[in-house]
Amino acid sequence: MAWNTNLDELPAYEKLKKLARNPFDLTVPGALSPERIKGYKAGGAGFDLLFATQRIDEAVLNGLQQLADQSCAVDQFLAMKRGAVMNRIDGYDSEERQVLHTACRDIFQETPYNAEATGQAKEELEKLKTFLAELDRGGVVNEQGESFTDYVNIGIGGSDLGPRAIYQALSAYSLENRRVLFISNVDPDDAASVLKNLDLARTLVGVVSKSGSTLETLTNEEIVRAAYREAGLDPGKHFVAITGQGSPMNNPDRYLRSFFMYDYIGGRFSATSMVGAVMLGFALGYDDFIKILRGADDMDRAAEDRDIRNNPALLLALLGIWNHNFLNCETVAVLPYSQALLRFPAHLQQCDMESNGKSVNRQGEKIPGFTGPIVWGEPGTNGQHAFYQLLHQGTTVVPAEFIGFRQSQRELDMQLKGTTSQEKLVANLLAQSIALATGKKDDNPNRAFSGNRPSSVLLSDKLTPYSMGALLALYEAKIVFQGFIWNINSFDQEGVQLGKVLANRFLQQMNTLHQAGEIDRGKHPENWAMLEAAGLLPHQQVD
Amino acid sequence: MAWNTNLDELPAYEKLKKLARNPFDLTVPGALSPERIKGYKAGGAGFDLLFATQRIDEAVLNGLQQLADQSCAVDQFLAMKRGAVMNRIDGYDSEERQVLHTACRDIFQETPYNAEATGQAKEELEKLKTFLAELDRGGVVNEQGESFTDYVNIGIGGSDLGPRAIYQALSAYSLENRRVLFISNVDPDDAASVLKNLDLARTLVGVVSKSGSTLETLTNEEIVRAAYREAGLDPGKHFVAITGQGSPMNNPDRYLRSFFMYDYIGGRFSATSMVGAVMLGFALGYDDFIKILRGADDMDRAAEDRDIRNNPALLLALLGIWNHNFLNCETVAVLPYSQALLRFPAHLQQCDMESNGKSVNRQGEKIPGFTGPIVWGEPGTNGQHAFYQLLHQGTTVVPAEFIGFRQSQRELDMQLKGTTSQEKLVANLLAQSIALATGKKDDNPNRAFSGNRPSSVLLSDKLTPYSMGALLALYEAKIVFQGFIWNINSFDQEGVQLGKVLANRFLQQMNTLHQAGEIDRGKHPENWAMLEAAGLLPHQQVD
Repeated sequence: MAWNTNLDELPAYEKLKKLARNPFDLTVPGALSPERIKGYKAGGAGFDLLFATQRIDEAVLNGLQQLADQSCAVDQFLAMKRGAVMNRIDGYDSEERQVLHTACRDIFQETPYNAEATGQAKEELEKLKTFLAELDRGGVVNEQGESFTDYVNIGIGGSDLGPRAIYQALSAYSLENRRVLFISNVDPDDAASVLKNLDLARTLVGVVSKSGSTLETLTNEEIVRAAYREAGLDPGKHFVAITGQGSPMNNPDRYLRSFFMYDYIGGRFSATSMVGAVMLGFALGYDDFIKILRGADDMDRAAEDRDIRNNPALLLALLGIWNHNFLNCETVAVLPYSQALLRFPAHLQQCDMESNGKSVNRQGEKIPGFTGPIVWGEPGTNGQHAFYQLLHQGTTVVPAEFIGFRQSQRELDMQLKGTTSQEKLVANLLAQSIALATGKKDDNPNRAFSGNRPSSVLLSDKLTPYSMGALLALYEAKIVFQGFIWNINSFDQEGVQLGKVLANRFLQQMNTLHQAGEIDRGKHPENWAMLEAAGLLPHQQVD
Repeated sequence: MAWNTNLDELPAYEKLKKLARNPFDLTVPGALSPERIKGYKAGGAGFDLLFATQRIDEAVLNGLQQLADQSCAVDQFLAMKRGAVMNRIDGYDSEERQVLHTACRDIFQETPYNAEATGQAKEELEKLKTFLAELDRGGVVNEQGESFTDYVNIGIGGSDLGPRAIYQALSAYSLENRRVLFISNVDPDDAASVLKNLDLARTLVGVVSKSGSTLETLTNEEIVRAAYREAGLDPGKHFVAITGQGSPMNNPDRYLRSFFMYDYIGGRFSATSMVGAVMLGFALGYDDFIKILRGADDMDRAAEDRDIRNNPALLLALLGIWNHNFLNCETVAVLPYSQALLRFPAHLQQCDMESNGKSVNRQGEKIPGFTGPIVWGEPGTNGQHAFYQLLHQGTTVVPAEFIGFRQSQRELDMQLKGTTSQEKLVANLLAQSIALATGKKDDNPNRAFSGNRPSSVLLSDKLTPYSMGALLALYEAKIVFQGFIWNINSFDQEGVQLGKVLANRFLQQMNTLHQAGEIDRGKHPENWAMLEAAGLLPHQQVD
C-alpha cells in the first residue's frame, strides 16, 4: 500500500471500526479460556507478550495485521534504520533529519544498516572504553590523585529521564563505590539538594546538551562550577561534556573529555548513545553497558518481523491503537511489577508523548482522529494500594501494560506463608490482569466489577542490562510504529517552542524589574497582570 | 437543596451543560485581559489560586457556585468534620465509618469539631513528643548506647505515598544526621536495595499498618527483622509500630513503642495522623510537624467558606468538575514547579483516584456520568522537556494544575543572564499557563498552537512545613468536595478486593507447586494457563 496515508484512509480501518462496535467480551464465563491464554502470546529478545486479556479476537488480530501491512510499518522502520530522512513535514519548514538511534546499538554485525552512524557510534564507544579504563586503573584521577566515586549527571528531558530510569533499574549491578546523582530541574533546590551531600573532590560531573545551549542545563552547570571554585577545585579536572561536535560545549579548556551526540538521534531516543553511555559506563562498567546495547539491538531486529505475532513491539503498538482509536481510551497505564523500574514510566512519558502528541500529519494536514495517548503509571504492587480502585471500578477504562520478571535482581528473598516475595509480586501481576478482564458480579453493586478492562503482560526472566536494553528498544519501536500508522512525524517537538518564547518574555520583564527599569504595561499586558496576580511585582509597581 | 443527589439532577447541571456548548474562548485577542487575570483569583491559608486561564466566565462561575450550594458541599464537609458517618452506602453492606482526618489537625482551638477524635490525636501527639524528646536527649538509644540516625518506614499505599511525598518535599528542613528511607513494594528488591546501604545498628524501623495484616508490609517487616537477627541485633529495640489499637501489631514484646491510628481515618487521608507523624517527627522534629498540622488546619477552615471565590479547595473541585463533566476531559495533570514535590502527584493519584474512582452513588445506583479523573504529573520544568508537547499540540486536552512558590527552599541560587534560577522556574510556570490558554497561529501548521487548554495556578511564598500542610489539606478537601458533588462514597475502596482474592488463588497454586502437589487443572483453569503462558510452571507440568 502507501506510506504517508492517514489511519482512517487505510482499507483495514473501516473493518476494524465495525469490529469495535462489538469487541470481544472477556466477562463471558469461559471467554478467557486456557487455549486463548496460551495462544495469545508473542515473543522476542527475551520478552513474552501475553495479550489474551485484550478485547480482541482473530478477526481483530487479522485487521491489525492488515493495518500494519497497509501502513508499511515495518518497511518504514527498516527505512528509518537505514537512514531515511523521517524527521520532516512535506512542504513545510521542518527539521529534515535522519532518525538513527538504532544505529548506536547496531554494532554487532559486520554490515550495519547505516555504516556511517554506526561508525560514529563505535568511535565514541572506543573513546569511552579508554576513558573508563583510565578511571579504573588510576590514569584519570582528581587533584589529590584519588579515584572518582561519584558522578553527577546534569541534563534535562532526554538527557535525564531515560538515563536516570536505566540507572535506577540497574543499580543492583552498580560497581562497588560508584554512585550517580542527577540534577535536571532549573529549580535551584534541585542542584542544592544534590550538592549538599556530595564530596566534590571525588566527583565527576557529566553535562549533557546536544546544542550546548539548554537553559536549565547551562544554569545548573554554572551553579555546580561555582561550587567547585568555592571549594578550591578546578572544574576542568572534573567536568565531562556530552554534546554535539559543533556545540560551544566542545571545549577542551573547560572539559576533561568530550563525547559526541549527533543530530540524527533525538533526545528522547538517546539513552543508548553517549547520553546514557558515559554515566552508565561509569556506574556499571563498559561491559554491562554493551549488554544494554545487545538487548536493544536484538529487540530492534525482532521489530523487523512482518508477522505481528512474532513482533512484540509492533503488536503492542497495534493493541494500543485498537484501544485508543477504536475503543476510545485516552490513556495507557504502564505498570511495572518491579520497584527498580520506578522511573521507567516517566521516561516513556517523554518518549511517547513528545513523539506522538501531535495534531498534524506528515503532509501538514490536521489529523482527523486521535494520535498519542496519555501515558502514566507507577510500579505494582504499590499502585494496587493507590489508583487501582479507579482501574477496576472507575467510570473511565484505562488499558494497562503490565511488565514483570520471573526472578528478582538481588538475592535477598524470603518464604512467608508458603511463597516468596517474588512469587507474591508475580502472582499479583497476573491476578490484576485477570481481574480487570473478567470482572465479577455481586449483589452488592459497590462490590461488583464490570470487567472488560484490557491489559497486556510483558514478561522476561530478570531485569538485567540485556533485558533493560530490550525493554527500552521495545517501547521505542512501539512508539515509532504508532507514529508511522498515525502518519505523523514522531521525531520533532515544535510544541515546546511557544512556552519557551513566553518564558523568555517573562524573564525580560523580570530583568527590567531587577534594573528598576520603566515598566511598559501596554506591552504584553497579560504578562504584567500575571506577574501582579502572582505577587511577583514590587509594591510600587502594583496597579 | 438535598444531600445525596446525583450531579445531573442538581438544578444547575442543565444550565452548565448549555454553557459548556460554547465555553469561554481564551484564544480571542484580548480575552485574557489584565482585569480577568487580576479578578480571577481566590485565596486561603497562604495559597493563591489563579484561574483566569480556565474556560469560564461569570455565568459559569455562578453556575458552579450554585452547584456547590445545591449539593450542600460545605454542609457535608462540616458534617464530616463533626463526625457524621460519611463512609457508607445506603441499603448495602458497607464500612459505616466516620471520616475524621481533619480531627488530627483540629488541635489548635479550645472546642474542636469532634472532641473525641481530636482528643485521641492529642494523646498520640503527646506520646510522640515524649518519644522524640527521649531520642534527642539519649533516653532511647541502641544496644551500644548510640543515638539513631536513620529511620526506615515500612508501609504501602497511604502508609507510604503521602508520608514519603511530604518527607521529600521538606527534606530541606531535615534535622542534621537524620535520614529516612522507605520500603513499600512486595518486590523483594525494594527491601534489598534499602538494606544494602544501611547501618542497622543506628536505624529505627517504623512499621505502618492499621490492621496489622497488610501482606506487603508484614512480608517486608519479616525480611528486615531477619536482617536484624542476622546482624545479632534485637528488633525489639529498633522497631516501632504505627497501627490500630486492637491490631496484632500492638505488642510491646515486639515493638519499642506503638502509636495508634483509628478506623475513622482512611489510609489515603492519614498523612497527618501518626502514620506521617512518627517518621516526619523523627526527620524534622516535633515542632515542624506541628507546623504541618497548623497549615492543614488553616486550609481545613478556609474550606468552610461558602463563597467559592474565597475557598480555593472548593473552587479547584468545581473547576475540575467543569473540565471533567462538562468539557469532557478524562485526566488532570498536577504539575508542581518544585523538584521537592516530585512524589506529590503519586500521593494525589492515591488520594484522588482511590477516593473518587467509583461507579455507584451513595444509594448503590450506577452513576450515569463520569466520576474521578485520571490524575498524573511530574515537576516542571522537567515536564516541559518531556510530555508538554502533547499538552500543547496533542489531540487530547489535558487540564493542568500548576503549583509554584515565589522563593526557593535552600539558599543556593545564582543570577545568570539577568535572572535567578527561581525566577526562571516561576517564569516558565506562568508562561506555560498563558501558552496553553492563548495558543498561537502560524502559517506552518506544525508550529501552530490551538490554545484553549485550561489550567489553574496555585502559588504560595515558599514550600515550608506550614505550606506543605496547607497544600495537602487543599487537595484532600478538593477530593472530598468532588465526591460530595458526584454523590459518591469517597472513603471506601471495594475495587481493590477482587485483585486480592485472585492473587491469593495464584499464591495457593504456587504453594501447591512448591510442595510438588497434584495439580487440578479443572479448578481455575485460566490461572493454570496464565502460569503456563508466563513460564512459571515446572517443565513436567506444562501441557
